[in-house]
Amino acid sequence: MSSTIGTLFKVSTFGESHGKAVGAIVDGCPANLLLSEADIQPQLTRRRPGQSAMTTARDEADQVTILSGVENGKTLGTPIGLMVKNKDQRPGDYGEMSNVPRPSHADFTYQMKYGNRAASGGGRSSARETIGRVAAGAIAEKWLFEQFGTRIVSWVSSVGDIDARDLTMEGLTREQVDANIIRCPDAVAAEKMVGLVKKTAARKDSVGGVLTCVAENIPVGLGEPVFERMEASLAQAMLSIPATKGFEIGSGFSGARMFGSQHNDPFEMKADGRLGTSTNFSGGVQGGISNGEPLVFRIAFKPPATIGMAQETSTFEGEATVLEAKGRHDPCVVPRAIPIVEAMTALTLMDFVLRQAYRNA
Amino acid sequence: MSSTIGTLFKVSTFGESHGKAVGAIVDGCPANLLLSEADIQPQLTRRRPGQSAMTTARDEADQVTILSGVENGKTLGTPIGLMVKNKDQRPGDYGEMSNVPRPSHADFTYQMKYGNRAASGGGRSSARETIGRVAAGAIAEKWLFEQFGTRIVSWVSSVGDIDARDLTMEGLTREQVDANIIRCPDAVAAEKMVGLVKKTAARKDSVGGVLTCVAENIPVGLGEPVFERMEASLAQAMLSIPATKGFEIGSGFSGARMFGSQHNDPFEMKADGRLGTSTNFSGGVQGGISNGEPLVFRIAFKPPATIGMAQETSTFEGEATVLEAKGRHDPCVVPRAIPIVEAMTALTLMDFVLRQAYRNA
Amino acid sequence: MSSTIGTLFKVSTFGESHGKAVGAIVDGCPANLLLSEADIQPQLTRRRPGQSAMTTARDEADQVTILSGVENGKTLGTPIGLMVKNKDQRPGDYGEMSNVPRPSHADFTYQMKYGNRAASGGGRSSARETIGRVAAGAIAEKWLFEQFGTRIVSWVSSVGDIDARDLTMEGLTREQVDANIIRCPDAVAAEKMVGLVKKTAARKDSVGGVLTCVAENIPVGLGEPVFERMEASLAQAMLSIPATKGFEIGSGFSGARMFGSQHNDPFEMKADGRLGTSTNFSGGVQGGISNGEPLVFRIAFKPPATIGMAQETSTFEGEATVLEAKGRHDPCVVPRAIPIVEAMTALTLMDFVLRQAYRNA
Amino acid sequence: MSSTIGTLFKVSTFGESHGKAVGAIVDGCPANLLLSEADIQPQLTRRRPGQSAMTTARDEADQVTILSGVENGKTLGTPIGLMVKNKDQRPGDYGEMSNVPRPSHADFTYQMKYGNRAASGGGRSSARETIGRVAAGAIAEKWLFEQFGTRIVSWVSSVGDIDARDLTMEGLTREQVDANIIRCPDAVAAEKMVGLVKKTAARKDSVGGVLTCVAENIPVGLGEPVFERMEASLAQAMLSIPATKGFEIGSGFSGARMFGSQHNDPFEMKADGRLGTSTNFSGGVQGGISNGEPLVFRIAFKPPATIGMAQETSTFEGEATVLEAKGRHDPCVVPRAIPIVEAMTALTLMDFVLRQAYRNA
Repeated sequence: MSSTIGTLFKVSTFGESHGKAVGAIVDGCPANLLLSEADIQPQLTRRRPGQSAMTTARDEADQVTILSGVENGKTLGTPIGLMVKNKDQRPGDYGEMSNVPRPSHADFTYQMKYGNRAASGGGRSSARETIGRVAAGAIAEKWLFEQFGTRIVSWVSSVGDIDARDLTMEGLTREQVDANIIRCPDAVAAEKMVGLVKKTAARKDSVGGVLTCVAENIPVGLGEPVFERMEASLAQAMLSIPATKGFEIGSGFSGARMFGSQHNDPFEMKADGRLGTSTNFSGGVQGGISNGEPLVFRIAFKPPATIGMAQETSTFEGEATVLEAKGRHDPCVVPRAIPIVEAMTALTLMDFVLRQAYRNA
Repeated sequence: MSSTIGTLFKVSTFGESHGKAVGAIVDGCPANLLLSEADIQPQLTRRRPGQSAMTTARDEADQVTILSGVENGKTLGTPIGLMVKNKDQRPGDYGEMSNVPRPSHADFTYQMKYGNRAASGGGRSSARETIGRVAAGAIAEKWLFEQFGTRIVSWVSSVGDIDARDLTMEGLTREQVDANIIRCPDAVAAEKMVGLVKKTAARKDSVGGVLTCVAENIPVGLGEPVFERMEASLAQAMLSIPATKGFEIGSGFSGARMFGSQHNDPFEMKADGRLGTSTNFSGGVQGGISNGEPLVFRIAFKPPATIGMAQETSTFEGEATVLEAKGRHDPCVVPRAIPIVEAMTALTLMDFVLRQAYRNA
Repeated sequence: MSSTIGTLFKVSTFGESHGKAVGAIVDGCPANLLLSEADIQPQLTRRRPGQSAMTTARDEADQVTILSGVENGKTLGTPIGLMVKNKDQRPGDYGEMSNVPRPSHADFTYQMKYGNRAASGGGRSSARETIGRVAAGAIAEKWLFEQFGTRIVSWVSSVGDIDARDLTMEGLTREQVDANIIRCPDAVAAEKMVGLVKKTAARKDSVGGVLTCVAENIPVGLGEPVFERMEASLAQAMLSIPATKGFEIGSGFSGARMFGSQHNDPFEMKADGRLGTSTNFSGGVQGGISNGEPLVFRIAFKPPATIGMAQETSTFEGEATVLEAKGRHDPCVVPRAIPIVEAMTALTLMDFVLRQAYRNA
Repeated sequence: MSSTIGTLFKVSTFGESHGKAVGAIVDGCPANLLLSEADIQPQLTRRRPGQSAMTTARDEADQVTILSGVENGKTLGTPIGLMVKNKDQRPGDYGEMSNVPRPSHADFTYQMKYGNRAASGGGRSSARETIGRVAAGAIAEKWLFEQFGTRIVSWVSSVGDIDARDLTMEGLTREQVDANIIRCPDAVAAEKMVGLVKKTAARKDSVGGVLTCVAENIPVGLGEPVFERMEASLAQAMLSIPATKGFEIGSGFSGARMFGSQHNDPFEMKADGRLGTSTNFSGGVQGGISNGEPLVFRIAFKPPATIGMAQETSTFEGEATVLEAKGRHDPCVVPRAIPIVEAMTALTLMDFVLRQAYRNA
């Protein structure tokens, strides 16, 4: 287990689907940040399942409680304990699957690694684990916004084979992202995506998708070469989210098909007196260090592993069997993953900002 | 700076292009591994520039010396100091660039982060930094092979818009990879790639590419959920390599276009009595933990930033200028990146194996 | 803030006196340990104030709840969330002290470090912070006992200038330690100590003391040279406990007055076939590594800083004033510190055991 | 092995007595510090054996080379590689001891932990390991002095049963400490100490001692509660030095015999406008955080384990034998330990200063 991330802004999470609670400890938050549950709840609510036809219908209130680290509405500089109670603490529908590891799910690997597993099967690979991250990320995000005006916005850029048109961040807000249930700001593509997810759900299947995330107003100089280059740490943060299969920054995989003369971002003096670049194939990072341009990256999510459709597979003992998952399951996780991606971005940036401070002191 | 990686198998690297030496300390290597410089040199030699028309012609011998941690041909269990002397310790051709940060290079960001930078410009973003990693990786690789028969092979799967046909690892060896200078085992594609690189070099441009890496004979149960899931740590390791822009595992970005019924890897009993999967869209990982199938992943490399072709850009002070890099530069780094990718894979796996040990004890 | 300790057995604590709760996350506990709140509660109860005339009378139930990481009575291998609610969440008696930093208390330094401080003054230097450690330590202790029969017993060896006679561990149990309220197994000394504490309390003063701790049945080979030698990590663990001023192992400071010919522990074959030593001036550690003999160490605790007696001091602004602490305060903390010392010992050993596993694999 | 220390100022050391070299990597040193070998050499020279009748006569030049991280006389902000070659790389006199673990030496525990050991026996418990620390400490010390005027001075306060009179730091310099070969600034005690060491050496025995260390001009607010309180980290740093048995800060063990009314340090406004304390039983630390008063602490060193005098002991196999160490050995290590203690103090403070920076930003 490695449930702690960060060097100076250190977040440790705990919790499975069916224990008493999930949550996190945030250690290293600067003192005197105005903070209450109301600052944290909105992103938790965006993460919550059952918000729309797109996502599973289990009702989870996910109300966060601050247990420590805040007094008189201000952070103390001490660890902030965060807790969200689980509503349903008993293993239910999941019980009967126990002898058949779900294909491409964590049942098998958890059992092999730990010699035990949660009744829900996936243990910490459960989406519910991400609650602690989202709560912690909301704190980082608030501090970054107050210090630098940092804005982090993620959206759905593809579902299955339906791609949104290329969207720049210019003016793009979370409200616009949330304007439709699939959270794709390209309304035309969004409608097609919703149709695809509905059809997929109807036949008890699931479908993957891609998120784009942009972070603006990032100080120059963040990232710790060599093993914690900005892109390396973002990649780790993003691929620590369940169901992810890929990460790319700036030009990404398409950059591998380009020539240097096309790909290099020329420097130019910006209107605000900052030396910037006229293109951003770098995605805001050079030499592993932020250059002041927006960070732009994408994360690939596989289709959810748990599907109601019949699958031929095998028991733990190797006997062939057919599995049909009971209950309701997310046919597509990308809309719900948005606040998680935003949170992991904020946690990564926050830690880098604090680590850079001594160089500017 | 963050030049240390690993929890139990801990590697710290040091060195720039023009200091006296580069190298690494490997802390946590199990005792009693047979080890000499001869075990480490081959991968360093594969990493060396000037091996072919494909890569830059600077002559660097890159002979490694073991400074500590080995006695009578066996590791002591104590830190292994590794050093490779730099031949050319004085800043040369690079001098005149100092007022113009090279586009998409690390000159600008290092200067902004540290308020200083090496004469060579990129400091630790120099390819020479990777020598320490390759040396350390060779040690990990040897131990993993002796324990589990682990084999790690990487190859060039695309250069620019030329793709190799899909290659499985079955029988693929490093010797086969090295059979041509571009290190692509698809001979037909290799020839085209070489042609493209030559044309690119002729016009003083550079070109990107993609590496595929496969690691076989991996124990089940490696990876530390949640923040050090196998894919998260591999992504961090790979994107810590200079010039990388993307990472994907298994189905990767194409998996985001698939349905769960296609993407799920059904379980089946393998001939060797191990419960495995009949497909491997997961890329050897489920729930962040290795499942015993081969790890399969790809890394995107951008075209090298330093090109001889004239580029319009700006000085540090914002004055427009034209930059033409002097000297010889790599038109394409992917062939040389192969031993680095293999090394970072070995380092990642080695640390996970040691961290898993107590669960099996 | 640095509220996380351990490499593979990682404990993160949170909480102040007057927030909603205190607690910890225990990450890295092996799966399949039988565990319930009943295994943790006894040491929390031993730590509780108000148990006797010796300690402060605030009534705190300190009931622990396991929030995650355990299912069907067994650990899952995932993070174990632990929480103890605070009863009194509002700043009370403490309010009026705010302009006068208590001498030798943490009021001043917390205010200077964080630019803020908890109403209770000391923030994380509060004894209440140790609850998370004691809860986590109980888990480690259970696992160590089951694996190796490890027994950890601490007792009061001096209060003020009253010393217990030299006690060896042979047969010494926690029950015997708890037989009197001062927790000193030398009944004669204990009575004097109790008398001294009563007299000290009567004049609203406080008094220091020393704890001895012995840990038996320790595997050979624990400790990670060079910076995490067994004695270095024990020293860190012990001096992270509030009010500590010193640590010594084996011969300790008296060893500095000895000759090598006296101090060296000769090897001899033990009855159980283990090569041991006939004396134990080393305190169970040689070269930073456990040698299989009992670990023996001592911790000095200063007299508690908060006293009711009038003290001449100064306000934050430098104005001379007289301070008399209101309310009831511990005149002597050493009896209550026993479970904390035992917990920190268990946490230190547990982490070393897990880190050693790969060498024995 | 755990040969890395520090969070932002990270030092990794390598090397045994008989490998090719010993040294360290210093990662996280701020850029633009003027630095050359001449800044590092003096403390290495103070650490060197063979300087006087007090210490062993092996001739070791111990010339340090900076391998990286410095260009044009200034630090780059990148890792600083430091190397000192070993002169004698072959196991010599030590060979014949191999079947008899030296009492209270690391031979036995290294063999048991690693299943292997260096020919010199103690591996990393060798005094030679400390070279890397001393070199790294000199860098930290230079930076701290330039930033805050921090001065760190250690001296011998007892040898065997001979105590120096209580010395305050007022005006005490390293030159005064070095004025006699035992490095005790109390000339009367020094003479007695020298006599004792000579007598001890003459009968092929060894003797222990205590070092006091004072660090002045320390910023308020350093230390990271709870697990890295200033005293906890200092204790760890000091007890990571070979042959140490105890650590105490401020009043230390004598503080455990005091009453709160005696021990509390009253606040008062200092001449320089800083709120300070009129006494310093706290040793410069309250609540784990520096309060601006001098840090004062003491470290107990046992008598060196290797003695020429005949000792009854046992072989690895348990056979009784008599051991007489060949060659020349240090009869007393405390004079040589001074630069090591100073270095570990500097490393600890440096890391805390960098970690505190973001709170002051």
